[in-house]
Amino acid sequence: MNGPTLRIRRVGIDTWRENVAYLHRDCPVVRAAGFQALAKVTVQANGQTIAAVLNVVDDEHIVQTCDLGLSEEAFARLQVAEGHAAHIEHAEPPPSIAALHRKIAGERLSRDDFFAVMRDVAAARYSKIELAAFVVATNQFELDRDEVLHLTEAMIGVGRRIDWQREVGRGPVVDKHCIGGIPGNRTSMLVVPIVTAHGMWCPKTSSRAITSPAGTADTMEMLADVELPLERLQQIVRRTRGCLAWGGTADLSPADDILISVERPLAIDSPGQMVASILSKKIAAGSTHLVLDIPVGPSAKVRSMPEAQRLKKLFEYVAARLGLQLDAVITDGRQPVGRGIGPVLEARDVMRVLNNDPDAPHDLRQKALRLAGRVIEFDPDVRGGDGYRIARDILESGRALAQMNAIIGAQGRRTPPQPGALVFEVPAPKAGVVVAVDNLRLARIARLTGAPQVAGAGADLFVRLGDTVREGQPLYRLHARFEADLDFARRMALQDSAVAIGSPGELPAEFVGGRDLS
Amino acid sequence: MNGPTLRIRRVGIDTWRENVAYLHRDCPVVRAAGFQALAKVTVQANGQTIAAVLNVVDDEHIVQTCDLGLSEEAFARLQVAEGHAAHIEHAEPPPSIAALHRKIAGERLSRDDFFAVMRDVAAARYSKIELAAFVVATNQFELDRDEVLHLTEAMIGVGRRIDWQREVGRGPVVDKHCIGGIPGNRTSMLVVPIVTAHGMWCPKTSSRAITSPAGTADTMEMLADVELPLERLQQIVRRTRGCLAWGGTADLSPADDILISVERPLAIDSPGQMVASILSKKIAAGSTHLVLDIPVGPSAKVRSMPEAQRLKKLFEYVAARLGLQLDAVITDGRQPVGRGIGPVLEARDVMRVLNNDPDAPHDLRQKALRLAGRVIEFDPDVRGGDGYRIARDILESGRALAQMNAIIGAQGRRTPPQPGALVFEVPAPKAGVVVAVDNLRLARIARLTGAPQVAGAGADLFVRLGDTVREGQPLYRLHARFEADLDFARRMALQDSAVAIGSPGELPAEFVGGRDLS
Repeated sequence: MNGPTLRIRRVGIDTWRENVAYLHRDCPVVRAAGFQALAKVTVQANGQTIAAVLNVVDDEHIVQTCDLGLSEEAFARLQVAEGHAAHIEHAEPPPSIAALHRKIAGERLSRDDFFAVMRDVAAARYSKIELAAFVVATNQFELDRDEVLHLTEAMIGVGRRIDWQREVGRGPVVDKHCIGGIPGNRTSMLVVPIVTAHGMWCPKTSSRAITSPAGTADTMEMLADVELPLERLQQIVRRTRGCLAWGGTADLSPADDILISVERPLAIDSPGQMVASILSKKIAAGSTHLVLDIPVGPSAKVRSMPEAQRLKKLFEYVAARLGLQLDAVITDGRQPVGRGIGPVLEARDVMRVLNNDPDAPHDLRQKALRLAGRVIEFDPDVRGGDGYRIARDILESGRALAQMNAIIGAQGRRTPPQPGALVFEVPAPKAGVVVAVDNLRLARIARLTGAPQVAGAGADLFVRLGDTVREGQPLYRLHARFEADLDFARRMALQDSAVAIGSPGELPAEFVGGRDLS
Repeated sequence: MNGPTLRIRRVGIDTWRENVAYLHRDCPVVRAAGFQALAKVTVQANGQTIAAVLNVVDDEHIVQTCDLGLSEEAFARLQVAEGHAAHIEHAEPPPSIAALHRKIAGERLSRDDFFAVMRDVAAARYSKIELAAFVVATNQFELDRDEVLHLTEAMIGVGRRIDWQREVGRGPVVDKHCIGGIPGNRTSMLVVPIVTAHGMWCPKTSSRAITSPAGTADTMEMLADVELPLERLQQIVRRTRGCLAWGGTADLSPADDILISVERPLAIDSPGQMVASILSKKIAAGSTHLVLDIPVGPSAKVRSMPEAQRLKKLFEYVAARLGLQLDAVITDGRQPVGRGIGPVLEARDVMRVLNNDPDAPHDLRQKALRLAGRVIEFDPDVRGGDGYRIARDILESGRALAQMNAIIGAQGRRTPPQPGALVFEVPAPKAGVVVAVDNLRLARIARLTGAPQVAGAGADLFVRLGDTVREGQPLYRLHARFEADLDFARRMALQDSAVAIGSPGELPAEFVGGRDLS
């Protein structure tokens, strides 16, 4: 149904991922079509179509009666100039809505269903309500492993996919990924320079923090530009074989980005969604070989060894069917890895390891070497078991540092800010042995200092599991730039520091014993 | 955390039930607090607090850098004048968020949990994502009957509740409700005048159509004003003992209204949510006795007799514990009731029945008399089995019509518009017997004509199950006001009229046989 013609007008309101259309209440279209605020509409102009949510305007300063106002995001997506003629009509339900309703009712979906749903998600035809319904429904009636496979394929199918064949030929394109949840743990920034120094191709894209105090992209941004359009990213990789870029600019698995924006506020991270999310991104980025880090611990995402094994097998099943070589490694997730928590402090740790600084955090160095070793063993010319030694040689010789500097230079070097000048040292409330570190709570405290947004904010951890501490000895130091931020973080830390002090017998067994990683 | 002071400014944008706050991108608060578009915030001014979603503005015509703009709904809710000082901060998660996460994970919720969730829902502290998650999670892990009870109690507890004791004393306050899904079926507009003519109190509030071609409120609005503030509604009821008003102005069970806005687009109508929604509204409206109509049929909401029995028992369980006398009646839902579908045509049918017009639809008259009889039997002075006869006497004597005119006069009489002048008669594609009517499809066709928004739009049904038709004989007539509407409805009707023609043997058995209703 084509309504009367309206003129496109850009409205300077940023509604982020939600397209909003603004019509004046006195616009004849509003009355004739019975539009109400929050109605779902489609806007058509010059052969382009976008879905949007309607807001009804009473103020001619915002839109006039024959204007069709579009929020910044909607205007950018429609790609039509101001003043252009446009039509607006009630949105048809997205084609996959019947499949969504069947999933809500608990049915199994087919491969075609998942493609239909992901096409609608990627085209922004799902409302937030429908997105949340899909996420909760697939969380509750757990997807079987073929459904996870089809969801992954569908996520890949509706986005861009990078092909490195011209650069790499038939050689492997490697990647390393952690399922997340452990503060610090910035191993990617060590693995990439080590394995690319070894001669492998590793075009790594990472995420920014959403609920954590830092993502790899936030930390790398302390040292170099990370917002690289796909063409520049490819140029850089051709020069250095690797990169450490933010994944958000590349339009890889866009449906996944949209689903994540709903999963996070609901704290939903089901195995099926995690597998589809991670593997779709890797395959879309052109990776052929992946080392996957699954940390296990009482405050990690995965809390028991059987749970870790189940997750590992699900990753393996889907990866195998999609032709991705996967080496899933279960690691010790009982505490943070490294000392710094927050972009600047984590970047400092990474550079200390690369510089072979005696002050470098030993655990971060060891974990990165072991993971890099596993990646290097994807090289058909490397004997099984030699990877760790090769990685260590590359690090100790300074070749990893040189390679990191080459990558930083290629992306565009930045000077990292200093750690926040406002500091507070959180004291041990009693003497004893460190028997637990609550990853989640420590991450929340670090976020209160302002990480990752506020430059220099974060926490610097001085103790590790098994350390003996005196009463009053500093457990970690908070860094902030703003007094209010420091105050909030300090109050939460003094209430419960997230570092439990007890007797040596209370120390939890390591789930892994390093067997998987050595 | 209190940010810098801003000045309230009303922004003429209607965002319906969603509060939106507008801040200029250059506002120091946006930078300092790291606000992003779509962030959830709380706005405080003069001791009032509201939750809102943030939009970031680039245009000083909409808000200036030290303004805190509020959409119409948000401005109305905050109840603070323009120019008043205000603070904005990141919203804390709603207090009940942990309960929501437990429900998503499949756990049973306690009475306190349901009260906490409904408090947050009614206070608009849930985002649409969280609302959808609650609705889907309670749909999937079906609520047990005590959870339904607690949800109902919580819905009542967070809204207004009308008390008719001053008017009615200890006598019953009666109501009649249908779970919906059957086109036409406008029995309430007959039951209310009949039972109030009998001397009972029946302050009926109804809904408008959301996905159907007409709600009782839409149909009554053809004859009288239905948007009555609570105080006027009470005056009217004192005068006539009854009313037929729209329920939306009365703030009864507001949490339910918000949940419904999410359930509809997801086509979710689980037994637990239906029971809580209907019973909370009735109890909040002060009803003590309720006759509930549960139609069963292949295209009704309830599709089998066992399903209807289970639903009936759930209604009975919750009603009994909340002190509501309930008489749940299972009825024949295989086809529409009455001829008209759409406000004007349904109002015509109702008035024909009240006028004892020989052209009045027999099925509508019979069903209304039977339901009214059941309501009348709530009267302690009426012998069991006498209700139907009393109702019929009231109707045939003209007292029901007189009473309806009194109610219409009290609410404010309106002249109904004529049925839409653009018509099309949908022909039978072949000769045979009417063996099925698809309620859902017929409702969709009627909506395409413009019902309920466009005055006079709808469908007029000429045939009923079991009727013999010739090829080309009109099955129903479409009425529209706009050519485009008629065209859409005609196209869908010619594709599949929703009226199935077959041989007498294909006629489906009536589920009910009138036993429950006679």
